[in-house]
Amino acid sequence: MHINAYGAYAGDKPLEPLKITRRTPGKDDVQIDIAYCGVCHSDLHQVRAEWAGTHFPCVPGHEIVGRISALGASVSGFKVGDLVGVGCIVDSCRHCEECDDGLENYCDGMIGTYNFPTQDEPGWTLGGYSQTIVVHEHYVLRINHAEEHLAAVAPLLCAGITTYSPLRHWQAGPGKKVGIVGIGGLGHMGIKLAHAMGAHVVAFTTSDTKREAARALGADEVVVSRNAEEMQAHAKSFDLIVNTVAAPHDLDAFVTLLKRDGTMTLVGAPSSPHPSPSVMNLIGKRRAIAGSMIGGIPETQEMLDFCAQHNIVADIELIRAEDINDAYERMLKGDVKYRFVIDNASLATP
Amino acid sequence: MHINAYGAYAGDKPLEPLKITRRTPGKDDVQIDIAYCGVCHSDLHQVRAEWAGTHFPCVPGHEIVGRISALGASVSGFKVGDLVGVGCIVDSCRHCEECDDGLENYCDGMIGTYNFPTQDEPGWTLGGYSQTIVVHEHYVLRINHAEEHLAAVAPLLCAGITTYSPLRHWQAGPGKKVGIVGIGGLGHMGIKLAHAMGAHVVAFTTSDTKREAARALGADEVVVSRNAEEMQAHAKSFDLIVNTVAAPHDLDAFVTLLKRDGTMTLVGAPSSPHPSPSVMNLIGKRRAIAGSMIGGIPETQEMLDFCAQHNIVADIELIRAEDINDAYERMLKGDVKYRFVIDNASLATP
Ligand SMILES: [Zn+2]
Ligand SMILES: [Zn+2]
Ligand SMILES: [Zn+2]
Ligand SMILES: [Zn+2]
Repeated sequence: MHINAYGAYAGDKPLEPLKITRRTPGKDDVQIDIAYCGVCHSDLHQVRAEWAGTHFPCVPGHEIVGRISALGASVSGFKVGDLVGVGCIVDSCRHCEECDDGLENYCDGMIGTYNFPTQDEPGWTLGGYSQTIVVHEHYVLRINHAEEHLAAVAPLLCAGITTYSPLRHWQAGPGKKVGIVGIGGLGHMGIKLAHAMGAHVVAFTTSDTKREAARALGADEVVVSRNAEEMQAHAKSFDLIVNTVAAPHDLDAFVTLLKRDGTMTLVGAPSSPHPSPSVMNLIGKRRAIAGSMIGGIPETQEMLDFCAQHNIVADIELIRAEDINDAYERMLKGDVKYRFVIDNASLATP
Repeated sequence: MHINAYGAYAGDKPLEPLKITRRTPGKDDVQIDIAYCGVCHSDLHQVRAEWAGTHFPCVPGHEIVGRISALGASVSGFKVGDLVGVGCIVDSCRHCEECDDGLENYCDGMIGTYNFPTQDEPGWTLGGYSQTIVVHEHYVLRINHAEEHLAAVAPLLCAGITTYSPLRHWQAGPGKKVGIVGIGGLGHMGIKLAHAMGAHVVAFTTSDTKREAARALGADEVVVSRNAEEMQAHAKSFDLIVNTVAAPHDLDAFVTLLKRDGTMTLVGAPSSPHPSPSVMNLIGKRRAIAGSMIGGIPETQEMLDFCAQHNIVADIELIRAEDINDAYERMLKGDVKYRFVIDNASLATP
């Protein structure tokens, strides 16, 4: 099947229309007509070859929602017409401890939705900036949101689960004080999710202008991290801080806000190292700095169900596929509230 | 009460005999005739003013064992003649969350055994390189080891609890693979304790010559950390690594040996920072780098009881007080197996 997609032929080339093929659904496969695809910072880094190992042509996109258009003979959990999503993972080894635990995101054989090895043409996976995708049913998520919100559901598949997973793992909830550092695509979801989980949520931003927006998202308090006095007022008080900022920055400023046994979880990897965090800050209160990467398939379903129950979607700006290069430039300036989502119908008429 | 002690009048002066005073026991106090005092690296750093804020004269020592020689009227848990110990903590606020949880080591008002503020003369606490000490009964530990092992029990009060606490907190035990980095005063205790807890213990050393010694201490395997191939064989396999090495070093070499959800706990703070650890290594397997500092009073008692049950003591070299300056030089060269302990009887005849 030849379909329309948007991608790049080289790291220094803009994205443009191109044709790709998708495999005929195998017995366990689900074929999805993609309705919308969220635009993640990872897309930009990979397609611009800022991360090593990009294969070209590269078609990014791992916040995929749409409707099932065909099924393999053995697929039992879905039917044609179902609203479904695909996130960052389209395959894994299915027999390691991680896969057994439903944490396919930590499987050494995890196959990402784009730029990972596959038997399919052209030899690496091609993502959601495209009209359709074919995925093994294990990696397909059910969407229970009303269809009118479908575009805004798309970012849950990466930004949502990337913040949901550490919030759940480190037990955000009533009685817990949770910080979210950075109010972008990930951070705005983190605020909404932590709030819905019942935690006391403090949003950290470098920009005084984001105070009201953060409160509107569900933050109980907003702290401008450049303001030492504001920071000091929260010293030793957090159970958990989810830090979504990938740019190198002073981790100690946040570690010192953790109470005893508190954890700061990093969900973004900087391109150059953060200043080395103080060991004394960790030792003195048995604090931890941890990392977390997206989430497993079962917890992604759990997150989607949680969001449907709590009427949570992302705040998005819908764009056409041909707007993607401009969208990337605006993302780099932080000029988006808070996630671009491609209307994949725009691929039909490039 | 004027007693003999050993201490220094300045950071660049050797330790020498001096006279200090101890308070008359208050109603909740226990007065201890010190039999032995272990020699910790902290002693050296503090008395040499390598750490900020040393008050002089400085009398170090926080691995104290001896016999009760007097009691305050309200003390109920002890009697004169009991074998007891005092570790790194001689007081705390007694009403914060940490104190309530028996984690006085994380109390912001923790008073260390030396160089911390006190009402007593001369205004800061003076440690165990002395003939007696007077301590509130809450911070006094019961020793159930046979008296013949008393000198070798002393290091349990700092080196023992500093490794015991993270091993327990991060649940070392049967079915768990636990690494101990560094085979010194702390590390040799970590190996013995993790082994006694039933974990599979791997000792890491930079020195090929320590292999047999580490096995004798209870290590199931020994890895020379400079040997990349040996290290690689343990990739992604550890539940917990307790890292006792305070010198700046490459943390990533050990982080990458942790399995998913594994933690490396640092128990030593370097004087200059470690190279900044890779965030990607944390994110990719939900790993954590944490810190841990000594342990609380209840868990110190638990540790002493555990050690008495399992016949665990430190491997020591007994010295006279006047040998302390030489002992420090040997410690700096790693020339001790594995802890110097002062025979405090030597203070009677300086
Ligand atoms: Zn993403
Ligand atoms: Zn797997
Ligand atoms: Zn010590
Ligand atoms: Zn306290």
